[in-house]
Amino acid sequence: MHSVEVRDHIMIAHSFRGAVFGPAQKLHGATFVVDAAFQAETLDENGIVIDIGRAHEVLKEVLAPLAFQNLDDLPEFAGKNTTTEFLTRHIFDKLAEAARADRLGRPGGELASIRVTLHESHVARAWYEAAI
Amino acid sequence: MHSVEVRDHIMIAHSFRGAVFGPAQKLHGATFVVDAAFQAETLDENGIVIDIGRAHEVLKEVLAPLAFQNLDDLPEFAGKNTTTEFLTRHIFDKLAEAARADRLGRPGGELASIRVTLHESHVARAWYEAAI
Amino acid sequence: MHSVEVRDHIMIAHSFRGAVFGPAQKLHGATFVVDAAFQAETLDENGIVIDIGRAHEVLKEVLAPLAFQNLDDLPEFAGKNTTTEFLTRHIFDKLAEAARADRLGRPGGELASIRVTLHESHVARAWYEAAI
Amino acid sequence: MHSVEVRDHIMIAHSFRGAVFGPAQKLHGATFVVDAAFQAETLDENGIVIDIGRAHEVLKEVLAPLAFQNLDDLPEFAGKNTTTEFLTRHIFDKLAEAARADRLGRPGGELASIRVTLHESHVARAWYEAAI
Amino acid sequence: MHSVEVRDHIMIAHSFRGAVFGPAQKLHGATFVVDAAFQAETLDENGIVIDIGRAHEVLKEVLAPLAFQNLDDLPEFAGKNTTTEFLTRHIFDKLAEAARADRLGRPGGELASIRVTLHESHVARAWYEAAI
Amino acid sequence: MHSVEVRDHIMIAHSFRGAVFGPAQKLHGATFVVDAAFQAETLDENGIVIDIGRAHEVLKEVLAPLAFQNLDDLPEFAGKNTTTEFLTRHIFDKLAEAARADRLGRPGGELASIRVTLHESHVARAWYEAAI
Repeated sequence: MHSVEVRDHIMIAHSFRGAVFGPAQKLHGATFVVDAAFQAETLDENGIVIDIGRAHEVLKEVLAPLAFQNLDDLPEFAGKNTTTEFLTRHIFDKLAEAARADRLGRPGGELASIRVTLHESHVARAWYEAAI
Repeated sequence: MHSVEVRDHIMIAHSFRGAVFGPAQKLHGATFVVDAAFQAETLDENGIVIDIGRAHEVLKEVLAPLAFQNLDDLPEFAGKNTTTEFLTRHIFDKLAEAARADRLGRPGGELASIRVTLHESHVARAWYEAAI
Repeated sequence: MHSVEVRDHIMIAHSFRGAVFGPAQKLHGATFVVDAAFQAETLDENGIVIDIGRAHEVLKEVLAPLAFQNLDDLPEFAGKNTTTEFLTRHIFDKLAEAARADRLGRPGGELASIRVTLHESHVARAWYEAAI
Repeated sequence: MHSVEVRDHIMIAHSFRGAVFGPAQKLHGATFVVDAAFQAETLDENGIVIDIGRAHEVLKEVLAPLAFQNLDDLPEFAGKNTTTEFLTRHIFDKLAEAARADRLGRPGGELASIRVTLHESHVARAWYEAAI
Repeated sequence: MHSVEVRDHIMIAHSFRGAVFGPAQKLHGATFVVDAAFQAETLDENGIVIDIGRAHEVLKEVLAPLAFQNLDDLPEFAGKNTTTEFLTRHIFDKLAEAARADRLGRPGGELASIRVTLHESHVARAWYEAAI
Repeated sequence: MHSVEVRDHIMIAHSFRGAVFGPAQKLHGATFVVDAAFQAETLDENGIVIDIGRAHEVLKEVLAPLAFQNLDDLPEFAGKNTTTEFLTRHIFDKLAEAARADRLGRPGGELASIRVTLHESHVARAWYEAAI
């Protein structure tokens, strides 16, 4: 399997509900360094998985509605804990949608899966990986 | 699949038996930066794989008996080469045990697998991954 | 000059006032990975700059009032932009105070300077360095 | 599954054909930091996946024909775009060949798979993973 | 002293003249991950060294004429070895010019110095630091 | 000032004397990732600070007597705590000696200073910097 991964980041505020979160129940924030990996069994006729320029752009588009936001205020996330895990899945869904819509410069059907990793500090990160 | 990974480290002494190890047959040591990844198909009702605070604590508990030790002196490892690979498996076994005993703040049966990575230098690392 | 540096991190929310900040004028957040370096011309009788265990503890104590906070709500920072640069200086001041009070396990007068670095993402960081 | 990974690097020039590559159609270059991971279900009698010294040597041997080259000039790559993805596969093929020829200090049949990762910058990387 | 540092990168081809360079006398290439640090004794009225958005833009502008180039073909560098060290100074000169022309969003006279670091691999880097 | 830095590593065992070291009084070990930076006001006629190949070789030569050793057994270190700080100075002294003996491929008198950094984990490091 071939994979190509690009990196970007967002800086957001949010709070969590649930005793398990301890002090993170208060309004706080995070820098998430985001890695998006696109996977395919074969390379296209140019010798690439996808256009890496498009990958950077699509990742930036997907992150834009989250950048510099208090996630607690976004209607889309009402009633949800926007945990690192939750956000890996949210970003995966948006990227998979872009892939299926052929917005990554290659027919989505030729891509196998996507993995989204969020680094929240030097000692913790989370990722979500699934078929498109 | 969802994954959450936490990081800690240990500093140990040890020696190896076997010509393949060359100069590492002598008593030497290592800093192992340890990443423990916990994987689950679904998030719990809080929107997490496991309580990341518990993950950090359980990893620290598992590493404590190794920290600042000469591994050659530990009865548990008698007759074994405590290679980086061996230690990834040892730490995996202890973490899997904690997971099955529900010590990670989520029923062990809801976790799928664990991956333990030991970084031994800027140019070498090893990992072990298996179902719990 | 000898230096010893330890690392920790905080996750905070805040907002900025001033057109120069663009979208960062909104409430958002950051993970700051914090490096604190302590510098001395000579090593003490144990062969160290300072007790690295104490350095980790004092850094954690200094960061504790900031951890998981909305910095906009802290009276101490009223009327201030809690920029990365501002925070490097704030943490420096607290560490310098601890050093002068001999809380680092070595007479403060034997330490020369402190440098505090805050990494806010994979593409931006700031630091402040001064004599104690 | 057990894995051991070693790191090296190459510095090369090349150019690409195809509008998708934009400015990278011009002669330019790259440092590729190369990670080669070797995977096996079981450890050998020494407690290792493979001799890590041999792994470093074989990776260096495989990279040597590429190091400090203009890849456009190598007959082996005539008519090919030597993209990061293409090179992950090329290096995989050479390492798999070495593994099958028992040149890694362990019968190739005891190894399961190899993963080759090329880091091309702080924001982009690619990898190829397959059974040997 | 306060410092703010931003990161970007370029991918270039070049060759060197001089026996000291060994195989690097051939046409090859490099990814340079570039860190530009701007230093000032005091923060401005917004609590910053400089506008970090402007810093990213100016660094990108300075790197643009080098990006995806064969440096051997640039008239500006005729007769020069475009070593990592040489390029740190070249980029410093361009950034210092921008600072003196008040293009960094703060009067250049309020900035003290600039440091430019080029990472050429995981085991080698160079930097140049001087007063503006 | 121009600087060039190269990286290598050693894996050693040692123990410390003194209550301040707590559990590190026991025989344990460390991987030290070692960065050696060489600094000069001017570049030579080739456009470099020093031959980076020679820098890598000299660093390797200086580290060789320490590699895979129990530092407690080396007569050279008898009665000393081989702390990270102590080792930065020891390696500095050996590199400065090599520089003054013109073993770095440039007259030692043309070099200004050397900085030696030892990374002992992902959360701690030390460095020593001085004029040659």
